[in-house]
Formats: sequence, structure tokens, C-alpha cells
Amino acid sequence: MIYLTRRERFSAAHRMFRQDWSDEQNREIFGKCSNPNWHGHNYDLFVTIRGEISEEHGFIMNISTLRDIIIEKIISRIDHKNINLEVDFMKGKIATTENLAIAIWNELREPVLKAGAQLHCVRIEETENNSIEYYG
Amino acid sequence: MIYLTRRERFSAAHRMFRQDWSDEQNREIFGKCSNPNWHGHNYDLFVTIRGEISEEHGFIMNISTLRDIIIEKIISRIDHKNINLEVDFMKGKIATTENLAIAIWNELREPVLKAGAQLHCVRIEETENNSIEYYG
Amino acid sequence: MIYLTRRERFSAAHRMFRQDWSDEQNREIFGKCSNPNWHGHNYDLFVTIRGEISEEHGFIMNISTLRDIIIEKIISRIDHKNINLEVDFMKGKIATTENLAIAIWNELREPVLKAGAQLHCVRIEETENNSIEYYG
Amino acid sequence: MIYLTRRERFSAAHRMFRQDWSDEQNREIFGKCSNPNWHGHNYDLFVTIRGEISEEHGFIMNISTLRDIIIEKIISRIDHKNINLEVDFMKGKIATTENLAIAIWNELREPVLKAGAQLHCVRIEETENNSIEYYG
Amino acid sequence: MIYLTRRERFSAAHRMFRQDWSDEQNREIFGKCSNPNWHGHNYDLFVTIRGEISEEHGFIMNISTLRDIIIEKIISRIDHKNINLEVDFMKGKIATTENLAIAIWNELREPVLKAGAQLHCVRIEETENNSIEYYG
Amino acid sequence: MIYLTRRERFSAAHRMFRQDWSDEQNREIFGKCSNPNWHGHNYDLFVTIRGEISEEHGFIMNISTLRDIIIEKIISRIDHKNINLEVDFMKGKIATTENLAIAIWNELREPVLKAGAQLHCVRIEETENNSIEYYG
Repeated sequence: MIYLTRRERFSAAHRMFRQDWSDEQNREIFGKCSNPNWHGHNYDLFVTIRGEISEEHGFIMNISTLRDIIIEKIISRIDHKNINLEVDFMKGKIATTENLAIAIWNELREPVLKAGAQLHCVRIEETENNSIEYYG
Repeated sequence: MIYLTRRERFSAAHRMFRQDWSDEQNREIFGKCSNPNWHGHNYDLFVTIRGEISEEHGFIMNISTLRDIIIEKIISRIDHKNINLEVDFMKGKIATTENLAIAIWNELREPVLKAGAQLHCVRIEETENNSIEYYG
Repeated sequence: MIYLTRRERFSAAHRMFRQDWSDEQNREIFGKCSNPNWHGHNYDLFVTIRGEISEEHGFIMNISTLRDIIIEKIISRIDHKNINLEVDFMKGKIATTENLAIAIWNELREPVLKAGAQLHCVRIEETENNSIEYYG
Repeated sequence: MIYLTRRERFSAAHRMFRQDWSDEQNREIFGKCSNPNWHGHNYDLFVTIRGEISEEHGFIMNISTLRDIIIEKIISRIDHKNINLEVDFMKGKIATTENLAIAIWNELREPVLKAGAQLHCVRIEETENNSIEYYG
Repeated sequence: MIYLTRRERFSAAHRMFRQDWSDEQNREIFGKCSNPNWHGHNYDLFVTIRGEISEEHGFIMNISTLRDIIIEKIISRIDHKNINLEVDFMKGKIATTENLAIAIWNELREPVLKAGAQLHCVRIEETENNSIEYYG
Repeated sequence: MIYLTRRERFSAAHRMFRQDWSDEQNREIFGKCSNPNWHGHNYDLFVTIRGEISEEHGFIMNISTLRDIIIEKIISRIDHKNINLEVDFMKGKIATTENLAIAIWNELREPVLKAGAQLHCVRIEETENNSIEYYG
């Protein structure tokens, strides 16, 4: 078993809030992150897959295959977008990094499997101080 | 003459567009950065001041004074905000990093002067690949 | 299960040595790190907690709660201090990064538990080349 | 159990290819990485060991011992070298980062054991976007 | 006047040597960097342009225009290549970072001018410790 | 004219204070940085030299020459030391980063000149947020 990690980046707007709460309730729980006019981040997304090394090629998966999967399934749908309004795999979810990591996991699990490896970890760095890891 | 640089960070939403242009025109010029639903970034702001070293203290300016000026004049007004809608010193300007750097310069020049030094440079890193410097 | 990591930073002086050894013995084992006049570092502290996502809020723990715990329990007691002389949770211990990681773990375990999650990992980067991880 | 990680760096040339394939076949699978005239990278090598803390010294292993092992066994043999042509522990292997991580593991396992700890992980960052981890 | 910097990256092999010197002479002057079997680096290229802000668009130059120029004129010709053997704008020159910075300057000066700005600085980071700046 | 920058790192303890002031006065001006029991940092030192490119070698100065000068004149005298007590070129000076940058400049100017180039800039990053530049 060996592990391969690919980083891709995206920039997006979001707001942490519940529609069934008032702005005051949202501000109390989510603080400045609930700003109704949105704010945003540069997100660093680290996708780790695991698998056996192919004797024929010497790698788990061609890194360009992994990159293409991440770009098609995630980056093209979230980069320079509003996570709350425009990202279908986040519809109906509170736009926390925790929920985002799980949603990205769910989008990537099957395509990675089809390409011959197993998804191991989705890690998102929202800022240099805050990050989330999800292992399924 | 010696130079002191302080970094502060903020996360904000923005959109590059002109109100007197159609969405199509905006998209043609500003591309994905003109998304009407906003996107956002983690911005790194580097403020450089210059001055003589005080013989009494051995520094140009107390770094905590510089930090307080940047936080009061910039960070508290832009962090977790929408640059187009909520940042008064950007009102009426296209929300490019170039215009942002100049606007921040204009906010900081006098307070730095009053505190005994000269503003030398405002540098903004919008992403790890793109940055702007302004020297007045 | 999902994992949330918060980074906080502190700068401190320390010295690696045993009081029951001579300066020569200390120098032999700890090298330049045993300098009797101290040296110091910028430490990067990464605290990882794990837990279930609250359906109500969409997060494991409010990141500001985690930040407040780390600042109250660790940063306020060690930042700009001498680890050997002034940090009570390091009293009587050799000031290695290994011992520091365990001591920080012991300070954080209960407060994290009370706040509704489990402490998963304490990681300390002493320099860009050297780091320690402790999982309890 | 506690974990200690040491980073060392090396710069090397390599080419991903199989000698029993034509240049066209190699290019089809390995893309630009199969360039017959070589290309190269700055590699960041992170070696993690695990062990008990010595009560006498307060550490798992003297970090300078670990550094010396990595430099003697790996860096001195690969830095500013051609991985395909000059690195004996890569002879006969496709020069992927996966194979490199396993080969480095095999070189380090025994020396780390002799020095009183266990090798836990070999991680190689080939670029800021691509990395490999191997745990034996 | 305002300054815009774009970073692009490339990985390449090279060797520092003079053909009219023996291997011994080359080794004496260039040390391990003269290895006849090549070595390589991940290079970070920072291109800074300067200009007036267009009142119409709020920027000096569309960052995607600058990116396209750098990719067409430099990255596509040097990434995953051998600098000594395959990069035409380095033909006949010793493959030092100094010469590389000047050669890149010469390739970029006119296209940047045609696009409406002035080339200000070419900076190359060969490793995290070594970098070169050229201002024409 | 071309510019070459070399980074070297050192870890040291210091305290910002004046001996002719009381602890209270020192605390009032220098805050937590005046802690009588010291604190410390990982300092990143960037030394920039400028010169003509030697036609014979293709560089301004052999980077290993510059590295050796910095290590001999600065790093060997300050790394893992107490800046106030043990660094002769800081004797009698308040241990601010400003004074440190000037003192390092004075130590490096002549050796760089003798080696055939001109010292251009000494930059010190005390933390990721605070840095000083001195140009003589």
C-alpha cells in the first residue's frame, strides 16, 4: 500500500448560516462567518489515494489522471463560485469546511475507484490556520 | 533608512465588474472573476514603512503600533466582508487588487506618518501566484 | 468521524539539559541546544481534534472555541516565555519538543473533551526541518 | 509512542520510462516526464520515526543522529545526481516517486532500527502539488 | 505606477559547465552542479510588470494575458526540458540561474511591451535558499 | 547588474530592553519582548548581493562562496546563541531586529566586497509576520 496526494486550489465565496435562523442567531453561532454579504477564501484541497504500485508503470495511478478527476469533479464546479448558491453538491448543506470535505469525498470516491485506486483522505485548508480532514 | 514590513491577513468576497457593462461584457473582460454570485480569497497584506531607527528604542516604530494601525484602518473594515458592497474605501471602484492596493495606501499613509514613519509599500498577495505592489 | 486542525504559534526560549549533569555532559548529548545562555524558536503548534459533525451547526466544534482553548491553556502561558523557567506544565522535565508535545496534550485533553470533541494529535514544528507528533 | 519527523532536501534529474518500450510508448504513458533528455526536481524528503521517549534524554532519538543517517544513506547518494543513472538503490526500477519512496524506506529501515527507533513513514514531495507516502 | 507579479513554475534538468573546460576544471569551479549526468530543480519564476492602471478596467494588464505570455514564451519551452540541450534561448550560455534570468528577460520584454506594460523584474528561485533577480 | 539572494537560518534567544531602564519601563515600551527570562525565534536571514555576471563563469559570485561568508561571519556566531549576551557584534545595542540587520550588514559588507560583489540588502524575517530590510 502506498499513498499519493494531489493538491488543487480553488477560490470561492461562502457564508455559514442556517436559513431557518435569524441573522442574529446566525451571528451568535457563526460570528463574522455568517455575514449576509458573503466572504471568501483560497482553499487548498489535498486528495490522497491509496493503492498498490503497478509493476508495469511503477505508480499507483497516473498523477494526471488523478488531477483530471479532481478538476472535472470538483474544481470546475466550485472555483470562482459561490459555495452556497452555485455548487450543486453543497445544496441544502451548511457551508462549513466539514460539510465541504464530506461532499467532496462523495464526489471523488467512485471516480477514483473506477480509475483503479481507493480514496483515502480529503483534506481542505481554508486558511493557513484552519483545516479539515475526512477519511470516509 | 531602514524598512519594516508587517503582514496581516483578511478573507473577503469580491467580484470584478463594471455596473455600466452587461454581464456578457464583464465576462469577456474579467472572465470567471466577474461571477455575479461573487467569489473570494484569503488576502495577504504586507505593509512596509521606512524611517530612521530611534536611538532611544532601537526601532523605527513599535511593531505593535503598526499592527494596530493596519487592523484599525484596514482589517477591521474588510475582513470577512464583501469588498464591493461593504468596504467604504472601495466604493465606486472596480474591485481589482490594483485598486485595492491604492485604496489601502490612501488609508494608511497619514496614520503611519502621524506615528512617525513613512509608508513605503503596500503589497497584496491575492493568491500564491498573483500579487500587486504600490509605492505611492 | 472528521478531523479539525487549528494552528497557533508561539516564540519561546529554551535549553536542553539535565541539572544533574555537568555542562560538558549536557553538551556531549544535547550539543549546541544545551547552551547555558539559552536559545529559542518560533514554534508552530497544530492541534487536531476529532468528532462527529453536529447536524445543527455543520461543524465538529466552533473553530473559535478550539482557538480560545489553545490560547488560554497553552499560548498565554508559553508565548514569549522561557520554557525551562516559566512554563509550569514543563517544570521538572527536559525541555525537548517530545516532552513539550506530551505536556501540551495533557493540558488540552480535558478542555477539548468538555467542549464536546476528542483530542487527536498534537504536532509541534520547532523548525522547518524538525517536528514531533503525539497521539496520546 | 511518539513520532519525530526530519526533513532533508535534494535536487536531482530523472526520467520516467521503461527501457523495453519505445519513446512513443513511454510518452503515451509518462507524458512529458519521459523526456529522453531528462528533467529534474527539488525533492523534499520527510522521514518519520516512532519510539518511546528515553527517560534519560527526553527524546526518541537525537535529531542529529537521524539527520546523519538520512544524509549518509540517502542525500549523499542522490543529491545533484541522475536518479536513473547514478543512484544504485534505484537501479532497474522505473524512476517514479512511488518507487523512490519504497527504495528510500528500504535503505533507512535498518539504520533507524539500529539507532533505537522504528521507521514509520517516508514522504516525498516532488512538487508543491504532488507527494507520496509509504509506511512499509 | 503600480506593479503586478505573476508566478509560474517549471521543472527542468541542467548542468553548470563550460565545454572548453575539462570535467576536473568544471568540478573545481561549479562543484556538484557540474555533474555530467545532470541534476534538476523545481524553479519558481516571478515576473513583475509595471504600468498605469487602466481607468476602464482597473488593472495594469489582465493577469490572464500576462500568464499566457509567460506560458507561451517561457514555460512551454523549458518545463520538463533539459536547459542545456533543449532550450533555444539558452543555447551557447552557461546554464546558471543568472544567465537564465537574463535570457527570460529578453524573451519577455517585447511581448509585455506589446501588451501595454513594461517588464520590471524577472526573479527565479532555484531552491528555497537561492534566488536571482534581474531588472534589465 | 544582477542580484543574488542567499537565505540562511538561525535560532537564537533575545530580549528587548535597556539596562538603564527599570523592568517596568522596559515592559511599557517593549511589552512581552522585554521578558527578563528571554524568549527566542527562528530567524530567516536573506542576504542579497549585486554585481556583473562574470563572462568566464556565468555567475556574479559562486553561491557557495556567499554561503561560506554568511556562515563564517554570522551564523556560526549567532545560531543557538543569546543575542544579548553572546553575540559580539550586538554588544551594547538594543536587540531589535532593526539593530541586528544593521550589525549584520556591517559584518558582511567587506567580505562580500573582497569576494568581488557589493552587498545590496540584508533582510531578516523574525516571524512570518515581521521583517526588516536594510540597504546600507
